Amino acid sequence: MPLRTDRYFSPDPAQKSLALALYTGIAPLPLICPHGHIDPRLFSDPDYRFGSPTNLLITPDHYILRMLYAVGVPLEQLGIPSADGTPIEGDPRAIWQCFADHWHCFRGTPTALWLRYALEDVFGISDTLTPANAASVHDQISARLSDPAFSPRQLYEQFAIEVLCTTDAATDTLADHDRIRASGWLGRILPTFRPDALLNLESAGWREEVDRLSALSGITIHTYDAFHRALAERRAFFKERGATATDHGATTPYTERLSKAQAEAIFERALRGEAGAEDAARFTGHMLIEMAGMSREDGLVMQLHVGVHRNHNAEVFRRFGRDRGADIPLAAEFTRNLKPLLDYVGNDRHLTLILFTLDEATYSRELAPLAGHYPALRLGPPWWFHDSWNGMQRYFAQVIETAGLPNTTGFNDDTRAFLSIPARHDLWRRAVCEWLSGLLVRGMIDEDEAQSMAYACAYGLAKDAYRL
Amino acid sequence: MPLRTDRYFSPDPAQKSLALALYTGIAPLPLICPHGHIDPRLFSDPDYRFGSPTNLLITPDHYILRMLYAVGVPLEQLGIPSADGTPIEGDPRAIWQCFADHWHCFRGTPTALWLRYALEDVFGISDTLTPANAASVHDQISARLSDPAFSPRQLYEQFAIEVLCTTDAATDTLADHDRIRASGWLGRILPTFRPDALLNLESAGWREEVDRLSALSGITIHTYDAFHRALAERRAFFKERGATATDHGATTPYTERLSKAQAEAIFERALRGEAGAEDAARFTGHMLIEMAGMSREDGLVMQLHVGVHRNHNAEVFRRFGRDRGADIPLAAEFTRNLKPLLDYVGNDRHLTLILFTLDEATYSRELAPLAGHYPALRLGPPWWFHDSWNGMQRYFAQVIETAGLPNTTGFNDDTRAFLSIPARHDLWRRAVCEWLSGLLVRGMIDEDEAQSMAYACAYGLAKDAYRL
Amino acid sequence: MPLRTDRYFSPDPAQKSLALALYTGIAPLPLICPHGHIDPRLFSDPDYRFGSPTNLLITPDHYILRMLYAVGVPLEQLGIPSADGTPIEGDPRAIWQCFADHWHCFRGTPTALWLRYALEDVFGISDTLTPANAASVHDQISARLSDPAFSPRQLYEQFAIEVLCTTDAATDTLADHDRIRASGWLGRILPTFRPDALLNLESAGWREEVDRLSALSGITIHTYDAFHRALAERRAFFKERGATATDHGATTPYTERLSKAQAEAIFERALRGEAGAEDAARFTGHMLIEMAGMSREDGLVMQLHVGVHRNHNAEVFRRFGRDRGADIPLAAEFTRNLKPLLDYVGNDRHLTLILFTLDEATYSRELAPLAGHYPALRLGPPWWFHDSWNGMQRYFAQVIETAGLPNTTGFNDDTRAFLSIPARHDLWRRAVCEWLSGLLVRGMIDEDEAQSMAYACAYGLAKDAYRL
Repeated sequence: MPLRTDRYFSPDPAQKSLALALYTGIAPLPLICPHGHIDPRLFSDPDYRFGSPTNLLITPDHYILRMLYAVGVPLEQLGIPSADGTPIEGDPRAIWQCFADHWHCFRGTPTALWLRYALEDVFGISDTLTPANAASVHDQISARLSDPAFSPRQLYEQFAIEVLCTTDAATDTLADHDRIRASGWLGRILPTFRPDALLNLESAGWREEVDRLSALSGITIHTYDAFHRALAERRAFFKERGATATDHGATTPYTERLSKAQAEAIFERALRGEAGAEDAARFTGHMLIEMAGMSREDGLVMQLHVGVHRNHNAEVFRRFGRDRGADIPLAAEFTRNLKPLLDYVGNDRHLTLILFTLDEATYSRELAPLAGHYPALRLGPPWWFHDSWNGMQRYFAQVIETAGLPNTTGFNDDTRAFLSIPARHDLWRRAVCEWLSGLLVRGMIDEDEAQSMAYACAYGLAKDAYRL
Repeated sequence: MPLRTDRYFSPDPAQKSLALALYTGIAPLPLICPHGHIDPRLFSDPDYRFGSPTNLLITPDHYILRMLYAVGVPLEQLGIPSADGTPIEGDPRAIWQCFADHWHCFRGTPTALWLRYALEDVFGISDTLTPANAASVHDQISARLSDPAFSPRQLYEQFAIEVLCTTDAATDTLADHDRIRASGWLGRILPTFRPDALLNLESAGWREEVDRLSALSGITIHTYDAFHRALAERRAFFKERGATATDHGATTPYTERLSKAQAEAIFERALRGEAGAEDAARFTGHMLIEMAGMSREDGLVMQLHVGVHRNHNAEVFRRFGRDRGADIPLAAEFTRNLKPLLDYVGNDRHLTLILFTLDEATYSRELAPLAGHYPALRLGPPWWFHDSWNGMQRYFAQVIETAGLPNTTGFNDDTRAFLSIPARHDLWRRAVCEWLSGLLVRGMIDEDEAQSMAYACAYGLAKDAYRL
Repeated sequence: MPLRTDRYFSPDPAQKSLALALYTGIAPLPLICPHGHIDPRLFSDPDYRFGSPTNLLITPDHYILRMLYAVGVPLEQLGIPSADGTPIEGDPRAIWQCFADHWHCFRGTPTALWLRYALEDVFGISDTLTPANAASVHDQISARLSDPAFSPRQLYEQFAIEVLCTTDAATDTLADHDRIRASGWLGRILPTFRPDALLNLESAGWREEVDRLSALSGITIHTYDAFHRALAERRAFFKERGATATDHGATTPYTERLSKAQAEAIFERALRGEAGAEDAARFTGHMLIEMAGMSREDGLVMQLHVGVHRNHNAEVFRRFGRDRGADIPLAAEFTRNLKPLLDYVGNDRHLTLILFTLDEATYSRELAPLAGHYPALRLGPPWWFHDSWNGMQRYFAQVIETAGLPNTTGFNDDTRAFLSIPARHDLWRRAVCEWLSGLLVRGMIDEDEAQSMAYACAYGLAKDAYRL
């Protein structure tokens, strides 16, 4: 059954027709993708191929891996290589069949909506995936993938992407970005500066990362001062290559303004391999403030993603490494934790600091009041687990009344799965129209207000917030 | 476009007609305003005038100030005087224009609904405010303000207010209230006893406040005992002048029953200027229990508003003082924190202790179960940031199934903005009818039950809970 | 007015007809009752009688007791015996009248929906209870109760219960369960192993409970090792008698893997009466892991109910004992607290550990992500205060998008009130159909998917998760 054009909208005829009218107005807008994890190699290599349907749609999607793992499918059976060399499934068709056999597990999840949209929109397949049609669906996708016209660059244009930002380590050379620009292709792929591996003294390989920073910046890093200068240098490097934003991940939103002597002492302990957990937490909290200060200077928009216990599953991490679906959110506290940072830069209306949370209890309690007061703050869209129909409706219902729409930033797809991008934006845009049609049909806003808010959510806010 | 009579209600025709019928039944009921921050001078001076539209509608409204500040408007540009003497905008028309220029920021917020209602209901202006019509709207309001009949007393009657309680420092002389009663005007303006500045040892000017208490009560306060007696004396003074309630604010709901010796020791340290943060927290926690004990004696209803980090923005506080929109909620914990108080007075069904929260996660988790068990407890309406359409719907959905409606207290507008009172009650009453029509159309309650619940929410519960 | 066949469903005609169609498909399915607190004596004694309407419907229902107490009715007036010998109401008709006089307090609560269903379904009474008809309703119920055919066994069949699990102390002899099996009656009443009183070193009478364990298992318990073996022996005893699950209650989800020496030392301190609060917390945290390990061996499904401050009201507890409605939820943290347990057994797909929470903020933040990743974990249905229409809708909206339906466990009624069982399952099944019809009418799932999900929620998931 093909996707309904009025899908996801309220069944009430009056509201549905308002939602459809709003959606029709914004559906043709190009996609702004200001934050995500698409590999720039997709675009730097003009002959890039996606491989098998399994390589394209299953292996890189941690939403799928974690669900199959949760219902009892070993990761080996999904072809994920393990550190201990357990034999793994090597036949992509068998993995695809296993996925189809468990398709029912995804009912009612965003994964099902995204995949169904991608199958129909990109591959022209309208049937629901079943164990019985798995092989035939696999072959239809395969056939399309073998078409030379099916390349990331071609899809970028087909998807009507206007700009797509990647996320790159502070020590990335950005060679792929250089290649993209040198190729003469007109797609706009911009890097984002992400220095987590340098700012978190406890991250694996921190010392080597500092050495890479040293080598790339040409600044020998024996002191906090040199470290600070090298970071500034890399920010400038990213900015020259088109970056408009930085991105920061931390376990908590803790910030603390260290004295220079304190920062130096901790940094030197870290160089000697003697920094402990408390050192690391304080140093991250201090460096977040420093990064905000640098953003005030260089104009790079600062993103802060906090509140997740990475690699929660010790065994899965040991055997299969990072990003295998074992990241679990934590309760977060922003009001007290962010105060030192906000005391320093919160009143600067030329700075943009975008906050993301995985603790929805903080939407109405802390984040909307903070974003609705501090000139420097904006609240990012529902993130990760909450990038879903219900997650979006909760976001609108809990955030906008207090924060106001202009203190938010529209949508970002935050995905590693290139083919899911149009599906994710479509879900967001429909969620926006559902929300606004609800306000409209209840007489809470006017029609021209609804249209203007829909445009902002679909396009304007992201472009403006990220200075694109 | 004039306000729709069916505004805010569900678009479903069956539910909407039930909602309208319920609303029609309660719309004519007078307004009970048991808690708020209206200045009694509005009523003590028969010739009180509101000043310009800006003075009336913008400057005193911290919801508006914080939103404009958040999107980059300096407070100076809104005419807010700063401590450092920065020049400020002095032309109320320019401030009004600036407000109109940013009107779109309020789309989807309660401020927009309140202002639109006030413009139409009080000033007969049905147009949506725009940058283009700002001057004309300003002049229409101005013209009405210059009408000698446009006075607070006249509006009190026009708004059909039955009783309005102010919030007054424990050391207020209540001279305005005396003047109101002496004037022969029949409006019912009652004081509320708020001793925060005395109970919080860390509040600025605590020592001077104790001296004022000493002077007013005629009790020299060199000991905790004298302090205690003086407080009791002031409570009696307020009660004689018509107060039926006290109000208490604290950062957290922490309570602790100190021994008399401990309380004395802390109080004496405070008199010597030697009390620390822990002393202050424990003393507040102890005095909340003492206040509950006094309420049990004198029958004053006790209100407890907790969970906000006051003056969060250090720079705004330093330059512009309190109540400029820089108060940010905190996570709250009631189950353990309130236990000492509840062990002392929770089973007394002659006491009424009304709890307010800014942490909606506590509605279903702690507050509804507490209010649904302890005879002394009731849960107040959605407060501050949550005094909004969605905030109210979440309140009904999360509270009533467990607490039961009789353990709640109806509505209070809690406003500094006199003109927003009818708009706020209208929003609440419509939210009530939306909620009840949902139960009714689903067959969860009967029609007479819905009518009785609507009456309780609109009028009966507040009158009963506050003993008005 | 008789109950509407379309009760509780959305008023939208399109959605309602889908909901009704789904409901019609699952309404005839038998009831799976995998967790609850029905006394097995109801079934072991073929001549068991329920007593008066008050004894049947009011006295054992702590939802009712707490609400009446909260609005000012002393427990004595409800016939609850007090430890201090205060005279109590002895006339069940007077208690019933008092209940009817306060019936309005239950409007909008699940208690009202359950009771109304039971009155109509079991007693054929369609009138809403009022103070005026209280006596007549009482007499109609009484007449039915005096019918010899009105027995628990007969109702078990009338309710179409397929299996009902009780909850039994680890030291219960299960004599009632033996009697049921010996009687030849075909009802399936299974025990559940609940060792809380042994695992919580601070529970009243812990030492006596250990002695009982010693006596029953025939193992003299002077050491941790013997304690461990005796527990294993009791698990085997329960399993032989048909138990498929264990149940564990703890104040928090804290887990910690103690070394054997640490566990021994704490246990020996406990035997000497010297264990403190920290000892108790650590020992419980350790034993939860041990129980999970034993479940991995013996295949008993493990249930974990955490996050409630038992006997919060000191005076009510002292005077009236446990289970009088004075249990208040606490904020819970699972991500960090459960990690030691999950490190030990979380990846075992042959273990089933079912989590329950009273802190709804943890649904989307922690529990859905955990259940959507760990093979051993499933999330139980909305518990206790949240076993309600809105509680269920929040559960579906916040859990399924991330956890996936197969990582949940359907419904359990968790009740002490036998007559409320069909009403509770009916509410759940209708809530399921409301949720699924919403997905269906919005085109998020197909019709056959909706039917299969409805079946799973109503029947399949509980049967599968509890290995029944």
